[in-house]
Amino acid sequence: MNPLTDQFTRILEKSSIGDLEILTNYLTNFEKKQQGEFSTYLSAGLNMTRVTDKNASVVTIPNTPFIHNNVDIPHGGILAVLLDTAMGTLANSKCQPGFSAVTTNLTIHYLTVADEDKISAQASIIRNGRHTMVLEGNIFQQDGKHIATATGSFFIIPKKAEPVIALKQ
Amino acid sequence: MNPLTDQFTRILEKSSIGDLEILTNYLTNFEKKQQGEFSTYLSAGLNMTRVTDKNASVVTIPNTPFIHNNVDIPHGGILAVLLDTAMGTLANSKCQPGFSAVTTNLTIHYLTVADEDKISAQASIIRNGRHTMVLEGNIFQQDGKHIATATGSFFIIPKKAEPVIALKQ
Amino acid sequence: MNPLTDQFTRILEKSSIGDLEILTNYLTNFEKKQQGEFSTYLSAGLNMTRVTDKNASVVTIPNTPFIHNNVDIPHGGILAVLLDTAMGTLANSKCQPGFSAVTTNLTIHYLTVADEDKISAQASIIRNGRHTMVLEGNIFQQDGKHIATATGSFFIIPKKAEPVIALKQ
Amino acid sequence: MNPLTDQFTRILEKSSIGDLEILTNYLTNFEKKQQGEFSTYLSAGLNMTRVTDKNASVVTIPNTPFIHNNVDIPHGGILAVLLDTAMGTLANSKCQPGFSAVTTNLTIHYLTVADEDKISAQASIIRNGRHTMVLEGNIFQQDGKHIATATGSFFIIPKKAEPVIALKQ
Repeated sequence: MNPLTDQFTRILEKSSIGDLEILTNYLTNFEKKQQGEFSTYLSAGLNMTRVTDKNASVVTIPNTPFIHNNVDIPHGGILAVLLDTAMGTLANSKCQPGFSAVTTNLTIHYLTVADEDKISAQASIIRNGRHTMVLEGNIFQQDGKHIATATGSFFIIPKKAEPVIALKQ
Repeated sequence: MNPLTDQFTRILEKSSIGDLEILTNYLTNFEKKQQGEFSTYLSAGLNMTRVTDKNASVVTIPNTPFIHNNVDIPHGGILAVLLDTAMGTLANSKCQPGFSAVTTNLTIHYLTVADEDKISAQASIIRNGRHTMVLEGNIFQQDGKHIATATGSFFIIPKKAEPVIALKQ
Repeated sequence: MNPLTDQFTRILEKSSIGDLEILTNYLTNFEKKQQGEFSTYLSAGLNMTRVTDKNASVVTIPNTPFIHNNVDIPHGGILAVLLDTAMGTLANSKCQPGFSAVTTNLTIHYLTVADEDKISAQASIIRNGRHTMVLEGNIFQQDGKHIATATGSFFIIPKKAEPVIALKQ
Repeated sequence: MNPLTDQFTRILEKSSIGDLEILTNYLTNFEKKQQGEFSTYLSAGLNMTRVTDKNASVVTIPNTPFIHNNVDIPHGGILAVLLDTAMGTLANSKCQPGFSAVTTNLTIHYLTVADEDKISAQASIIRNGRHTMVLEGNIFQQDGKHIATATGSFFIIPKKAEPVIALKQ
């Protein structure tokens, strides 16, 4: 047997119900990534769905123990992932062909604890300039609670044939 | 055979070398969490190590494709996870017994792309007040490159016997 | 003759038309402060008017050379004065008797240059908590241009009988 | 007699000792501006001095009632004027000939109340890029108290022959 499968079996044997849920979700979304449903390991790991139209972008993840910090509430940094993704997706959708938008500044106010089953960040545009954009992002719950509010600055750069290497130099 | 093991085997068969590396790391750190080496699923998932002394806190993760966005560079939100964790860990270490520090505000300037094998955020205290704290966080590389700089405000609250439920209500 | 009047006469003699306008405005508003129309030297110096209702606060100043920087456009810091005043006025109007709100954090995105005769900042409340408040402030022109957007955190403290001395100690 | 002098005399007659001090300072610095010692009405009105070297810029104003808010402490917006001026002066000193730096983002944490005779903001550079700069600004007192900490983003633009009109369009 593959040593990975061996390790997996060992992990399963020691798994709590919570562990099993986390593992099941992880594998299910990992397989979906293999099938092309997610574009990155991170969006698969967070089970992230995105909806973008002309004026707004909404990014949603389930609120599971996978994203909790050590006082069992959603990690502020994961809310930052959501807000940055929602704003960045919308900013990029507004770029001319051959250009993309990179986050230069992100400011988040954390207002209260997210306690529903899903967490959804929505972005809208404050200023759409030629060189820079400013966007707003908010996390609201279904029950109306305002969880977090954010603003972000984006800088518009030409896409490179080899973007990563170009950016890294 | 357990349907999960079945699914796992199916995933392995379709895995690229990149997929296998991600899966191997994930399982290894998941098992370490079962053994008590990580306190949360998230810190295991990111393979996060923390070192805190009297004046500083350093949080480190490997720079792998698991944290990359769809232009193959570390997701800005994951850098926020690092910066918030470093600042929050230090802030909490300064609280009186029975109190904890929650992030109320986080501002990040992204300066350049992280391209080394590890990403390390270090936090220090700007102001240590009775009700609020202000901290600074920075991500520097070994080669001296300054990747990101952040400031955070923290509010000091009494710990509850049942913190999550109390906070959620 | 009073040496101040002497100095004033000397200044008048050397004044450009621009100087005379600045001086005339300054004296007019200084006299209004003596008559109780302004509460501070700063609000008189900036000729600041405020309107606050239940949900919003609007602060307006004329866009004169007095507030311009050395490239002849309104100084970003003066826009901060406006935004902070609008948000702080509204935050204070929401405090229970015996309490006041102090700014702990202010984030401003400057979007474009203000070029109308008046500059107006309006504030609204994002979160009204027991210990902290988060507000939003915006500067829009009559022609619809969005000049600046801001968020601010406020901390609610008991008013002291002698606030300044108490705060300073 | 000039109606302005008339008004000035009337104001003097009704002036408190505090009023007289404010007026005396105002006229003295206004006259210095006429003599070329200040470049703007605002820097004269605030009696602002600047020292800039290769790595830092320091901007200082006296802490007088002219800059106080209605609870008799320095207005947060005036601290923003100081911080923005210190950072902007340094940013501009780093620009290539023909270019200037404009503030796009300013984040300030207010830490405690300034209570010395002078208030001094010092700026340093965090990142000096081709298109954008990030700077840090701090207000410290002589007694060591940390009053405020700030970060600012600046965008580098070509200077126009007619900068204001160009920017306004």
